[in-house]
Amino acid sequence: MIPRYSRPDMVAIWAPETKFRIWFEIEAHACDAQAALGVIPKQNAEAVWKADGVTFDVARIDEIEAVTKHDVIAFLTHLAEIVGNEEARFVHQGMTSSDVLDTTFNIQLVRAADILIADLEGLLVALKRRALEHKDTVRIGRSHGIHAEPTTMGLTFARFYAEMDRNLARMKTARQEVATGAISGAVGTFANIDPSVEEHVCTKLGLTPEPISTQVIPRDRHAAFFATLGVIASSIENVATEIRHMQRTEVLEAEEFFSAGQKGSSAMPHKRNPVLTENLTGLARLVRSMALPAMENVALWHERDISHSSVERNIGPDATVTLDFALARLTTVIDKLVVYPEHMLRNMNQYKGLVMSQRVLLALTQKGVSREDAYTLVQRNAMKVWEEGRDFQTELSGDPDVTAVLSQDEIAEKFDHGYHTKHVDTIFARVFGTA
Amino acid sequence: MIPRYSRPDMVAIWAPETKFRIWFEIEAHACDAQAALGVIPKQNAEAVWKADGVTFDVARIDEIEAVTKHDVIAFLTHLAEIVGNEEARFVHQGMTSSDVLDTTFNIQLVRAADILIADLEGLLVALKRRALEHKDTVRIGRSHGIHAEPTTMGLTFARFYAEMDRNLARMKTARQEVATGAISGAVGTFANIDPSVEEHVCTKLGLTPEPISTQVIPRDRHAAFFATLGVIASSIENVATEIRHMQRTEVLEAEEFFSAGQKGSSAMPHKRNPVLTENLTGLARLVRSMALPAMENVALWHERDISHSSVERNIGPDATVTLDFALARLTTVIDKLVVYPEHMLRNMNQYKGLVMSQRVLLALTQKGVSREDAYTLVQRNAMKVWEEGRDFQTELSGDPDVTAVLSQDEIAEKFDHGYHTKHVDTIFARVFGTA
Amino acid sequence: MIPRYSRPDMVAIWAPETKFRIWFEIEAHACDAQAALGVIPKQNAEAVWKADGVTFDVARIDEIEAVTKHDVIAFLTHLAEIVGNEEARFVHQGMTSSDVLDTTFNIQLVRAADILIADLEGLLVALKRRALEHKDTVRIGRSHGIHAEPTTMGLTFARFYAEMDRNLARMKTARQEVATGAISGAVGTFANIDPSVEEHVCTKLGLTPEPISTQVIPRDRHAAFFATLGVIASSIENVATEIRHMQRTEVLEAEEFFSAGQKGSSAMPHKRNPVLTENLTGLARLVRSMALPAMENVALWHERDISHSSVERNIGPDATVTLDFALARLTTVIDKLVVYPEHMLRNMNQYKGLVMSQRVLLALTQKGVSREDAYTLVQRNAMKVWEEGRDFQTELSGDPDVTAVLSQDEIAEKFDHGYHTKHVDTIFARVFGTA
Amino acid sequence: MIPRYSRPDMVAIWAPETKFRIWFEIEAHACDAQAALGVIPKQNAEAVWKADGVTFDVARIDEIEAVTKHDVIAFLTHLAEIVGNEEARFVHQGMTSSDVLDTTFNIQLVRAADILIADLEGLLVALKRRALEHKDTVRIGRSHGIHAEPTTMGLTFARFYAEMDRNLARMKTARQEVATGAISGAVGTFANIDPSVEEHVCTKLGLTPEPISTQVIPRDRHAAFFATLGVIASSIENVATEIRHMQRTEVLEAEEFFSAGQKGSSAMPHKRNPVLTENLTGLARLVRSMALPAMENVALWHERDISHSSVERNIGPDATVTLDFALARLTTVIDKLVVYPEHMLRNMNQYKGLVMSQRVLLALTQKGVSREDAYTLVQRNAMKVWEEGRDFQTELSGDPDVTAVLSQDEIAEKFDHGYHTKHVDTIFARVFGTA
Repeated sequence: MIPRYSRPDMVAIWAPETKFRIWFEIEAHACDAQAALGVIPKQNAEAVWKADGVTFDVARIDEIEAVTKHDVIAFLTHLAEIVGNEEARFVHQGMTSSDVLDTTFNIQLVRAADILIADLEGLLVALKRRALEHKDTVRIGRSHGIHAEPTTMGLTFARFYAEMDRNLARMKTARQEVATGAISGAVGTFANIDPSVEEHVCTKLGLTPEPISTQVIPRDRHAAFFATLGVIASSIENVATEIRHMQRTEVLEAEEFFSAGQKGSSAMPHKRNPVLTENLTGLARLVRSMALPAMENVALWHERDISHSSVERNIGPDATVTLDFALARLTTVIDKLVVYPEHMLRNMNQYKGLVMSQRVLLALTQKGVSREDAYTLVQRNAMKVWEEGRDFQTELSGDPDVTAVLSQDEIAEKFDHGYHTKHVDTIFARVFGTA
Repeated sequence: MIPRYSRPDMVAIWAPETKFRIWFEIEAHACDAQAALGVIPKQNAEAVWKADGVTFDVARIDEIEAVTKHDVIAFLTHLAEIVGNEEARFVHQGMTSSDVLDTTFNIQLVRAADILIADLEGLLVALKRRALEHKDTVRIGRSHGIHAEPTTMGLTFARFYAEMDRNLARMKTARQEVATGAISGAVGTFANIDPSVEEHVCTKLGLTPEPISTQVIPRDRHAAFFATLGVIASSIENVATEIRHMQRTEVLEAEEFFSAGQKGSSAMPHKRNPVLTENLTGLARLVRSMALPAMENVALWHERDISHSSVERNIGPDATVTLDFALARLTTVIDKLVVYPEHMLRNMNQYKGLVMSQRVLLALTQKGVSREDAYTLVQRNAMKVWEEGRDFQTELSGDPDVTAVLSQDEIAEKFDHGYHTKHVDTIFARVFGTA
Repeated sequence: MIPRYSRPDMVAIWAPETKFRIWFEIEAHACDAQAALGVIPKQNAEAVWKADGVTFDVARIDEIEAVTKHDVIAFLTHLAEIVGNEEARFVHQGMTSSDVLDTTFNIQLVRAADILIADLEGLLVALKRRALEHKDTVRIGRSHGIHAEPTTMGLTFARFYAEMDRNLARMKTARQEVATGAISGAVGTFANIDPSVEEHVCTKLGLTPEPISTQVIPRDRHAAFFATLGVIASSIENVATEIRHMQRTEVLEAEEFFSAGQKGSSAMPHKRNPVLTENLTGLARLVRSMALPAMENVALWHERDISHSSVERNIGPDATVTLDFALARLTTVIDKLVVYPEHMLRNMNQYKGLVMSQRVLLALTQKGVSREDAYTLVQRNAMKVWEEGRDFQTELSGDPDVTAVLSQDEIAEKFDHGYHTKHVDTIFARVFGTA
Repeated sequence: MIPRYSRPDMVAIWAPETKFRIWFEIEAHACDAQAALGVIPKQNAEAVWKADGVTFDVARIDEIEAVTKHDVIAFLTHLAEIVGNEEARFVHQGMTSSDVLDTTFNIQLVRAADILIADLEGLLVALKRRALEHKDTVRIGRSHGIHAEPTTMGLTFARFYAEMDRNLARMKTARQEVATGAISGAVGTFANIDPSVEEHVCTKLGLTPEPISTQVIPRDRHAAFFATLGVIASSIENVATEIRHMQRTEVLEAEEFFSAGQKGSSAMPHKRNPVLTENLTGLARLVRSMALPAMENVALWHERDISHSSVERNIGPDATVTLDFALARLTTVIDKLVVYPEHMLRNMNQYKGLVMSQRVLLALTQKGVSREDAYTLVQRNAMKVWEEGRDFQTELSGDPDVTAVLSQDEIAEKFDHGYHTKHVDTIFARVFGTA
């Protein structure tokens, strides 16, 4: 995570101020629950909320931590400075640091998930808009980078929509995976604190109590979370790769937007580089790679070891901030993508009509021509297109062996794009619901 | 995937015979749908089913493929040998190879998922049984590999149950991810085949039509699938690691089962190695690593490139066969795990009562002793245990400064395990439902 | 590793016959060394060599292993069947199974490395030949997929040569990493066997004694080995990606070879798919992913655990067989690559002369035109090329504001490719040595 | 990379100030070379060095970049502000941004490598010291976590030394991999700049000219570099895992150091957690994971795309800073590790003498006792140790069937640790050279 590839809202989730605020809420709600149980005095629980409006002094907490070498104790000391030592004396009673840390980490991930969900929803809006806009913009479909049959630009946007819609569902599932909290003590037995405290804190903070924790919330949840980010990142790479291909000089079916004042563009009009989608390709590699240490974090020793912590201190912010930035950037790219329908037609007709050779072959055989003969007929006309740059339809129309079997209308019909686009509405209805 | 770490049912899914059988079903159902549309004659569609009972001759198909260099054509040629050339002439009409290959791959993955789901269910049965059996078997909980507070062996099994239960839910989601089929043609436009054919084939084969495909079914689905296998593998490593720790000579709280006749065990009774769980640890590394190429497969070029194919020909069988084997092996390990409750007590009491020092500290302060004084009292008695091997409770009971504050009963109460196990039932109810 | 992507020589290294042959050699040489030390009788050591010419009966060994559940004991039993029970009684004395297994694994890796080294050398020959052939074949260099400045096809081959030459050096280093053997006993202390036995066996088998082993040879060596394969695989992907780009319909600067009889090519002459390089892209993903479990194998518990074994039983053959196949396939692709120099020229001139706009801009400023004015001059001519398809040089030559500064010769000089190729010889000399 | 796991020297390498300083040096040396060629005036080249002592104003450069949207241009503008617009007008002539950026990145990596090399050398010193200190400190060797045969703590340190010494060699090779620079222009043809400029700049900056670059230095070099960091990280995990095992309560053969004043330690003397080595385990996961995106960076499109950049902006600092921190932390851990030889003896004798059962078995058979009888003799005595906690040597000495074959001296000899340590000197000589 570096500022260059960050957006402030996601960064804020990982700021110390946010963390301390969440710590405070956990502690304060826990006090309420303890007071309700009669474990601590009600007035002490109430007193803690005096710090409710306060922004905690990160520098002061760091100062205390430098002495105590313990972050949670440093925070509690600072909290006592605000609330009053006497009033604060029951704060954190019966809890362990991990109760606070793990619950906080999950709250941060849930909030990060909320942003990512909103990001995906924004991306879907953009994709849908462009899909509808270019529903009938014919372009050549390519397998292996080689022209195959016509499709439409709308279908390209629509398939990215469908893919990102699946990612939205996955992201919601991932959010649910980590939306748990634990206030269960040193080894998860609730020896020193009643389970109702956990329930109260979780309810207040929008979490579900972790059914069984040890000192920590089990890390298979986080592995599933970060693996999901990796899948979404891979989809971003998928879209980015398509655009990079479309923008290459010889294809030029689309371009990333250029801000008006970007210098140099008109002296070298060909030199507009798809740097945003290339950048997204790299960011995808980064996010994807973080799934692995998250998976390695699952096998902690016994009731917990702290090996997961250094990993999460990095990939927690890194993966979410990077993915948020990437989704937002991709949304802008899609929103503003400059599409060149005329170049799509030009490319499709590069080998004039040749992409229809298979349709013609089929038509001939359906008229009773043997497979070998049909093949010969197609081949001899196709080679004129390929080698001499002639037009396939014209050649066929002038080949008496072809016209003996197929009428001019029948030949022309084989070159009608409507044949290829007749089910676009069906597919759109599948993807976007009935239009 | 190697025979050593394979089970026959999962291997069979990936056998050529199975593949050709699925290919046949796709082609035959497609013919039915084409006949219903009037695209091909009904009798030809019916004729294809003559091959229904037949086991396809893999060697013969290979022989044809050696000539045609195309696997689907080789199969269709062989099918025609069975059904009759004339009868078979409409088979595959309007379809592309990928329609068959991709739909087949997904059917194989769905079947693999079904086995893995059953594996997980079997593992859950074993974990639950052992959890209930050892619900009250007290052992020391450990953070950082260091004794912390008591817990029970039942809670250990229960947390693995809860984790594997989450994995079961993830596996079901993963199954759904890949339970789609596509019969949509060269670039997914249904130019040469009606969408109803896809619907019919999918219904017959228990799949959902892919809402929008290109030549291929989008690979984000498979990335999510294999990432899920990676998470499950990581959970296997988690359980395996716990057992490996329990079996180490100095701990010996449990052992993998030893078959009666295994030689050497009684001359070196200490030398029983947790080789099964070590093996599972390695298998987890393998399955996990396959998530990455699956994610890299997402970004295919345009409407498809075939780079995913070589990856999937490997990780399709490798990941599912290995995970199936690992889950089955783990189930056996759990089922037959030899648990030593007496060693658990021995270990917990290694430093006689010292794990209770924090409870005593708390009790003293709750009686009004200042934190400093309480600390000094605990410390001077704790050091006798640590350095001289004495018993902590005995020392405390004989320390007049302690007994001045805490009665013998109160001291004794601090060493009662019931304090730590009082919420086991609550936790079990959360995990297994109300007992 | 699947037969489809395998070559026999590499597969043979991992065959049981090979493994048993290596086991035999280790045991036989160890006996010689033990006899030389006087630890075992000379005639027994000599007797073992009776099995020298024998191909071991894998089925028989499997049969014994089914009973003994121990592969090394099964082999030794079978060896005794050949050599005679009495004669064989000192075989393996003082050794542990790992001594045999680990040394064997390294011998297999060394042999695999030898094949991979030969593969790389073969690839280098092909790359050099093609580089020299196309040293002066001008094509457009592209950054971001966008035309930049001219380069030559020879330089493209030459840079792949240089990269693969680095890989050759890396592969030789990797070979050296694993060219060690160990005969050091249960925890590596030589308690039951003299270090001179290890030295003798290693010398005979072309290995270096592992300076310090435990029960196992340390796995950082293997991590480095498999990481190297991952780097090489990534270079294969690099070359494959270039070719895939060159073959795409709109570019078509090169094509993978087509065997004469490959049907369908002439009826759809545009539809020649770069399936080999796409396949290589997928294989690269596979090999690369195996570096990770190899790295996770490094941290074995204490003097060894067996978690590495299941990983290596898979990735040992998988990574080497796949990489061997990939290198061989790439060599064929390079050897037979059909290069289209005329298409290279066509592409370079797609926007007639526009790639030279920066040279013209520079020339104008060097003649004293202000940067702003020069920019305006270039821009107005460039836009005619871009928007109206005119020729850049012609436009410039007809623009009096340009010709006021640059003579026709000077303008023409800016469109001379020689400017861009003048250092090709220098670069070739760097890469291939002085020509 | 987060401050918590960072050290200032390595962080400084990645600071903007450092980067701009390197940019300056590249530009200034390039001017010198251009002046020597007569391409630019000597006085302009000399003038650039006026900025030699200056610390560049990062804020000012950022300010300019906010306008120009180009980092190199922003720097050059700022440089001109220092040197004078007229004087600076030939700076960067004939170069492209990548010439500066790529060469700078490699210089940063080389400097990072130098720190990592020094780190490894420091670690080797610590490991050697501890190895010599504990050369004869006997402890039990363990395979599968189970007691096997005695070894020494010195051998443990020595094998880590040997492993880290290999890592030192790998790191030196990795340094060499990236110690190249390129000043070769937009597509690497030296069209606008003479190769001698590259040579001069590289010589001045301690680099080798990249034999053939495109716009970029080929990324296989960086893949090999980061893969090496991954291997080293895995070795760190290896050492960390050993220490974590040694510190667990039941083993307690060593402990991470505790600073004197760390509170709480004496009231809970058992609760000293190996948090440093657990932390190292997590850091290893992080560094290892970065090898993969580095490998994916190799296959750039044509002469370059910029997808590698976002990856490297992250993993460049992240991997080197984290590994530097980890190596330094590990060195401290090793240096101050508290070793408990008495606990090693206690553990080895946990099952009094039982680890010697195999030696006794061997001794009996060597005296002519049949394998079955010997086994029975060992077994019946071993079981008394195992089940009743007796002493193995005592039992054997009192078993007349044993003493009929082995004298008391012979029995005693089997329990002499000297048998296991007799080759320690040999191994030390192999590892450290002749003592």
